Amino acid sequence: MDNELENLVNGIADGSVRSLAGMITCVENRTTGWLEAMKKIYSKTGHARVIGITGPPGAGKSTLTDRLTRTLLDKGLSVGVIAVDPSSPFSGGALLGDRLRMKDVSALEGVFVRSMATRGALGGLSLAARDVVKIMDAFGKDFILVETVGVGQDEIEVVKTADLVMVVCVPGMGDGIQAIKAGIMEIADIFVVNKADIEGADSVVKDIQAMLSMSTDKGKKTIQVLKTVATSGDGITELVDTLFQELEATKKKAGRQRDRIKEEIIGLLEREVSRLIHKRLDHNDKLDVSVDKILARECDPYSVVQEITDDYIK
Amino acid sequence: MDNELENLVNGIADGSVRSLAGMITCVENRTTGWLEAMKKIYSKTGHARVIGITGPPGAGKSTLTDRLTRTLLDKGLSVGVIAVDPSSPFSGGALLGDRLRMKDVSALEGVFVRSMATRGALGGLSLAARDVVKIMDAFGKDFILVETVGVGQDEIEVVKTADLVMVVCVPGMGDGIQAIKAGIMEIADIFVVNKADIEGADSVVKDIQAMLSMSTDKGKKTIQVLKTVATSGDGITELVDTLFQELEATKKKAGRQRDRIKEEIIGLLEREVSRLIHKRLDHNDKLDVSVDKILARECDPYSVVQEITDDYIK
Repeated sequence: MDNELENLVNGIADGSVRSLAGMITCVENRTTGWLEAMKKIYSKTGHARVIGITGPPGAGKSTLTDRLTRTLLDKGLSVGVIAVDPSSPFSGGALLGDRLRMKDVSALEGVFVRSMATRGALGGLSLAARDVVKIMDAFGKDFILVETVGVGQDEIEVVKTADLVMVVCVPGMGDGIQAIKAGIMEIADIFVVNKADIEGADSVVKDIQAMLSMSTDKGKKTIQVLKTVATSGDGITELVDTLFQELEATKKKAGRQRDRIKEEIIGLLEREVSRLIHKRLDHNDKLDVSVDKILARECDPYSVVQEITDDYIK
Repeated sequence: MDNELENLVNGIADGSVRSLAGMITCVENRTTGWLEAMKKIYSKTGHARVIGITGPPGAGKSTLTDRLTRTLLDKGLSVGVIAVDPSSPFSGGALLGDRLRMKDVSALEGVFVRSMATRGALGGLSLAARDVVKIMDAFGKDFILVETVGVGQDEIEVVKTADLVMVVCVPGMGDGIQAIKAGIMEIADIFVVNKADIEGADSVVKDIQAMLSMSTDKGKKTIQVLKTVATSGDGITELVDTLFQELEATKKKAGRQRDRIKEEIIGLLEREVSRLIHKRLDHNDKLDVSVDKILARECDPYSVVQEITDDYIK
């Protein structure tokens, strides 16, 4: 590990916010030595509670994150916020507002906000987000809120790594149930119907409850459906109380933690293997010869891949 | 290869549409022997021209695909359509209409339509789509249109595998330029401003042209921006003419084909290596021991991954 990263690791232990930001950047950019630095801080992780916040665009997730952050601060807890921008190359400007607004919170003592872009995250967004969570955790944050602005599979993978997942819905988004489709049901620990002052909030709550009661996963605990108005703060106290209760309940489930660590190892492993493969192929002109043969239809990509794996795997 | 797949491979050679559908299903489900079947048909691929069609929701991609299909049919060409549904768990019902409407085309002689869901595609959507393209190609389709309904990174990866990528825009989608953001610029070979009868079409064309002229990629050829009204058919003839010209031009670029084959090999390789590692880990309780150590913070996931790669990779 070079001096810069060593200093950052030490700085994090000393509570330097500048070091926290610096180390995240180094790890995101895979600066030489990042892996050694991550190994070094790992023993200091495990304290923070991680909450994933997801839901369709316009549900008020950012405002809710803002409220949650302030409420946690009032309780004397320190907070890290990871805001994940969507990968969608078509949704542009609207998000800027969110990120700008989030700066209000980041100016508060005890809050650290980091935005992450989906695009370009080396080795996948969910792995990159896990790294950032760990760094904030090692820094000593009590709570880490991971808010995904996007709605793609990538973003779902990100919140899945949290201790607790909050799915935010709103009234008036077309069919209430249609809005919360496959993939979300399974990951939700708490449902929040935000903008509950709008007409139709109660019917959304009912829709969600009906959907939950139909769920085949009988062994699962009851999932709460709460109403909030993030802009006014209505329902936030109840939401935070519920969050604490649920976190206490999940703490006891060692199984969930085991599964998450296994998932992480497999994710890291795939990234590492892919890196090793790329490195080898870059220094090997055999691939070019194979491509020539494939272009001439003398060979096929599947057979080439079998040959390479035979070469590479013990 | 078992009998069923052998029959399907033979059926494809005989032009059986039922075999075409059956083989796609087998390959999607990774039915035992699928790889041997793919190897077998590979020598028959390379004839079809593949066109990727992408753009924001509501741009009229499906209607455009419909029009293109009919125009190609009129020229005596056979067409395969691959419609990729988005992975977004939040966008539900709206898409059904598209898929239902597409059935009109699929009833026509010489057209084969296949929908693919993002979720659950084994080993990644772009690899799965490549497989389907190859099977349709081996079947003898002259043109294969790959339409992505979604807007995520996954869908971008899918159209990137095409010979030619058409990006569809529409007037009145907020900031014209914002709508076509990073990731799209680099992959577009042709821009289509659809719904060109709506006010603001010309300004979208100008925006795109301005953006293209600012592009730093100086060596690149001029990218055309065309106007269409898919519902009425206006501009479709010009679009098809341009498609043919561009396809003729890209044909000469062997480099692009080489790059695509390389990318495919690397994708297949990552999937295969990952599959092999999963298989080994499933039959090994070492992983559970490591997870215990990590939970006790005696060890970290990064070191575990290094050990595993040292064990498995030559």
